[in-house]
This record gives sequence, structure tokens and C-alpha cells, in this order.
Amino acid sequence: MTVVKVAILGFGTVGQGIYNILKDKREHFKTTLGVDIEVAKILVRNCSKQRDKIDAALLTDNMEDVLAVGGLDVVFEAIVGDEPAYSYLDQAIEKGINIVTANKVMFAKFGLTLQQKAAKYNVRVGYEATTAGGVPVIKTMENILRVNDVQHIQGILNGTSNYILTQMRTEGMSFEKALKAAQDLGYAEANPFDDVSGHDPFNKLMILSALAFGKQPRWSDVEVVGISEITLQQVKEADAIGKRYRHIAEVAIDETGVIRAKVGPELIGQEHPLYAIDGVNNAVALDTNFIGTLTLVGPGAGMYPTASVMIEDYADMLVKKSALVTV
Amino acid sequence: MTVVKVAILGFGTVGQGIYNILKDKREHFKTTLGVDIEVAKILVRNCSKQRDKIDAALLTDNMEDVLAVGGLDVVFEAIVGDEPAYSYLDQAIEKGINIVTANKVMFAKFGLTLQQKAAKYNVRVGYEATTAGGVPVIKTMENILRVNDVQHIQGILNGTSNYILTQMRTEGMSFEKALKAAQDLGYAEANPFDDVSGHDPFNKLMILSALAFGKQPRWSDVEVVGISEITLQQVKEADAIGKRYRHIAEVAIDETGVIRAKVGPELIGQEHPLYAIDGVNNAVALDTNFIGTLTLVGPGAGMYPTASVMIEDYADMLVKKSALVTV
Repeated sequence: MTVVKVAILGFGTVGQGIYNILKDKREHFKTTLGVDIEVAKILVRNCSKQRDKIDAALLTDNMEDVLAVGGLDVVFEAIVGDEPAYSYLDQAIEKGINIVTANKVMFAKFGLTLQQKAAKYNVRVGYEATTAGGVPVIKTMENILRVNDVQHIQGILNGTSNYILTQMRTEGMSFEKALKAAQDLGYAEANPFDDVSGHDPFNKLMILSALAFGKQPRWSDVEVVGISEITLQQVKEADAIGKRYRHIAEVAIDETGVIRAKVGPELIGQEHPLYAIDGVNNAVALDTNFIGTLTLVGPGAGMYPTASVMIEDYADMLVKKSALVTV
Repeated sequence: MTVVKVAILGFGTVGQGIYNILKDKREHFKTTLGVDIEVAKILVRNCSKQRDKIDAALLTDNMEDVLAVGGLDVVFEAIVGDEPAYSYLDQAIEKGINIVTANKVMFAKFGLTLQQKAAKYNVRVGYEATTAGGVPVIKTMENILRVNDVQHIQGILNGTSNYILTQMRTEGMSFEKALKAAQDLGYAEANPFDDVSGHDPFNKLMILSALAFGKQPRWSDVEVVGISEITLQQVKEADAIGKRYRHIAEVAIDETGVIRAKVGPELIGQEHPLYAIDGVNNAVALDTNFIGTLTLVGPGAGMYPTASVMIEDYADMLVKKSALVTV
């Protein structure tokens, strides 16, 4: 059986999730994918940190060690922030290594560049995990775009801000109290600015724009408004007339090819596809020309949802590669 | 440029939708798929029926004429009922022709058999359109099954019955009046027994069971209950306590591999993933081990949603085939 070597860049929650799934499912993947997936290297910030059940020889704090692994087939990148993640992936592509990333900040900025470079070097790029976590919006859109045009995308792309708006409506909590509840549950970051400011959904929206339209609007033209100004009073008044505030990231293209995007709270009624999306879930509604409106709903974050879709990205590469040799 | 020849079996609403999209998008597909897709034959019941804008030489009422087309790459099958559709597809597979079907009655019964035969003859089978129309539940599930187990599936798989239950709740219509409204809108069949009896969602549920678990429960063990016994009074009482009747098709597998399935009206609360699905939409909620619960919502029928996903099935085959020669 062919052994394929993989590396994990970043060993926080998501990186550990990838490691655990690859280990637990190793026999399963031999059967279903026809290969033995071996984790050959893990890039960490601090090699001396105590880690249970991880062979210390796998760990390195130097990207050169990762790139030096002979026959490395893919890197799973789960680092935070655009650098050094972008440079690492750029180097991996030059070495002919496929890349799978969960890094939305990096991919919003450098996704199109990386994809162009990958095409040149004949390697593949998986980025399902960058946007809406476990919700397979990237693969679904790639697939429907083969026949349909996607004209308009609306998403709830941050679970924390949606959780806060939901708690305000259903529990009568103030914004501050709901945010505290989200932090206590581990949804929000210690510094939740990215969650509630719209900055995080903005990045994901730019990734969706690049996929749907092949390009992004100029970033400075996109109005990004957070939810911290929404008062409990406003939420209550809306609820009384059957409406709900949702933090919606939206992008559309017109007939002339002009893209318009915005992120901000919107007051929507029952007829809206995102009206019913409560709690920490993410959702994306795609308006297409032939199919109509498709909505996908699911967990937008978390160790295993995110790690799972990254491994699905790689499985997809393996399936397409195996088509090359078996037929 | 490579010309690929395709045939359409059945020229009702869906068959015509396929023809129109292939014609309108012919130049587009040259660019995106790298092939020139030519409709080489259309199987109809009555060749003498007047059809605008269709070259009469394309039409035949004899499947032998379809199978005799040299180098035919795929048949799109949009016939109603299990026979002669199954026999036609069986013959096509033996000739090495890929198949794409929208025929849920046939595929519920013969899907696993056709897939086994297709594997033997090295041809591919697309059946996204059999279940939930334009909602890409088949491809999504194939993809997540590479890493996840799907343990439990719940679906609203018939738009007509969901439309009726929605109208009863929101407009205070009786069952009979709501059914009449669905017929007037073209949602329900002239004989709507399959829609409201649960027979139609049962077929789709069996297709989902075969995909998720590799097998179906014994059909006679599956309880199938329709919605015609639900009274307006019951719907109103449920609504008053914040609950809703949904016509739910459900299948699950336990640790010992036993599959349990049922179709029937269920009274569900806000926490249920299908609570919010109103109107003629279809929806499927998949419970998975790593990702959690994913819900897909969209149009469950219609000329262009159905035709579009059938062409997506074929596009997927072309993309995988092209991987064979370009790398």
C-alpha cells in the first residue's frame, strides 16, 4: 500500500483535531482511500512544551524541517494570522506539495495568489475550512458553479455574533451579558473584537467573493459594521413585529461585473433564508440562476468540524489523484 | 476540441430543461469543461408530437437508436417509473455509457444494483436529482462520508406536503384547500397520492439509506404515514404552543448495524433543524460524528433545479475524467 506523508502546521485546537482524526481513522482510510496516511512532521511554536502521546521526533519549530521531509504530499495549515502562514504555504507549493488551510485571514488576502501559483506548480489547494467551518460551502459552490451562476451570497459567518443576537432575543440578555455568555462557552475569543466587529465575517466573505466571481471588491469599498451598537430595546421591538436582527455578510455581482459587498446587522423577516438560523451555527444562502436559492447550515467552528473538512479536502485530492492511476 | 455525445431519455419537463441548459451553455462548457457537448439523440414516447425548435432527426421512440449512437458518453434519464427506465440504463451500462438519472422510483429499487454493475463496467452513475431536487445532498454526503460517519438522516423530501402543512398553519387552510392550492400552483401531481401519502419521500429516503449505510432496511419494515389525517385543529393547537407538524422521512443506523426508517408527520419544536423549513422547499439534516449536524435547504423539484444538478453530475464525471489525461 502506498504511504502518503503529511505535515501539520500549527498544533492548536484544529491542528490537534487533524492529528487525532488521521490517527483514529488510519485503518479506515487505508480501505476507503487506498493509502496509508502518515503524519511525518508537526510544526509547533515551542518544541519543549509537554505534549501527551505525541512522538517528540515529529515536532519541529522550523519550517525547513517540514520542507525537508522526502515525498511530502500535503501540508495542513492551521496557524493564526497571515504571516508566516502565507510564506510557508508559498514555499510548500514551490516544492510541489499540496496545501490545505483553515486560515481565513491569510486566505482572504492571499488566496487567489496561492491558487494561481498552485496551478503553475500543478499542486492543489483546499480551503473549505476557511469559511463557515464544517459547512461545506466551498465544495458546494465549486460544484454548482460548473453549471450555475451564483449572483448573490448572504451569510451568517460568525457563530459568536449570531449567538449573541439570539441570546438577546430569546433570553432578554444585554449585548454585554450575551457576549460574556459566549466567552464562557468558549465561542468567543478572549479578545472578541474580530467576532462582533464584522472583521471575521468580512474575511470569509472575501473568500466567497473570489470563488463565486473570480475576484474581490476593493476592501476599502466594503462597509463593515459590527453588532455592538444593537440594543436590547431594538431587539425586543423587532421581535414584537416578527423581525430579527442578523449579522449578515453579503456580496453580489451585477450585470456589468461590478461587485458590491457589505457586512452589518440587518433587520429581516420570516421570508428571508437566514431568519431561522439561531445560536452558534453558521449559514450561507446562495442565489443561483438555475437552482434558485440554496441554504447550508451547520457548525461554523470547532476542533472536529474544522479538522474534518480539512481532511475531506485532502481525501478529495487523493480520490482525484487515484483516478489518474486506476483507470 | 473533443466533442462528447449525450442522449436524453424522456422529454418532459426535466428532459427539456437538460436540453435547454446544454444548448444555452454550450459555449460556456467549452471553456469550463473543455469539451463540446452535443445532444445526439432524444428518446420520446411519441415522435410525431409537434416540438418547436427541436431537430426532428434527434428524436426517436426506440432505445436501440440511442444505444446505436457511436461514442455516446452519457444518457440523462428523466423517465417516470421503474420500467422501462431500469432496463434502458442497464443496457446503457453494458455498452460502457455513463448514466445520470432523476428517477427516484427506479433508483430507490435498483440503485445499488445499477451502481454495482456500473463499477464492473467502469462507468459512472449520477443520481443527485433523484433526491431533494436541486439540493445537493448526494454529493455533500459522498464527500463528508470520506471522513465522517453519518448516523441519522432526517428530511423534508416532498415539497408539496410541506407546502400544504405550511399553508394550514400560516393561512388557516384546511388540508383539502391547501392541497388544491398546491395543485393550482403546479406543485402537486394531478393524482397527488404519492405526495401526501409519504410514498414519494419513502423512495428518496431509501436512496439516502443506501448511500449513507450501504444498504436499505427491508421496505416492509418501514412505517409510512401520510399527512391527510392531520386536521386544521391539530395544526392550530400545535402552533399555539410553538410547535409545528412536519412530514419527516427519517433513517438511522445503530451500533449493531441495524437500520430503522420511517416516514410520517411529526410534531417538532424550535430546536429541531427542520422546524423553520416552510413552503415548497426540501431540506435534509445529516447528523455526523465529526462535523455535527449539517442542514441543506432548497428547491426540491422543478425543471431547472433538477436539470441543473443532472448536468452537474455529468460535469463532475468530465472533470474526473479530464484528470486522467491532463496531469
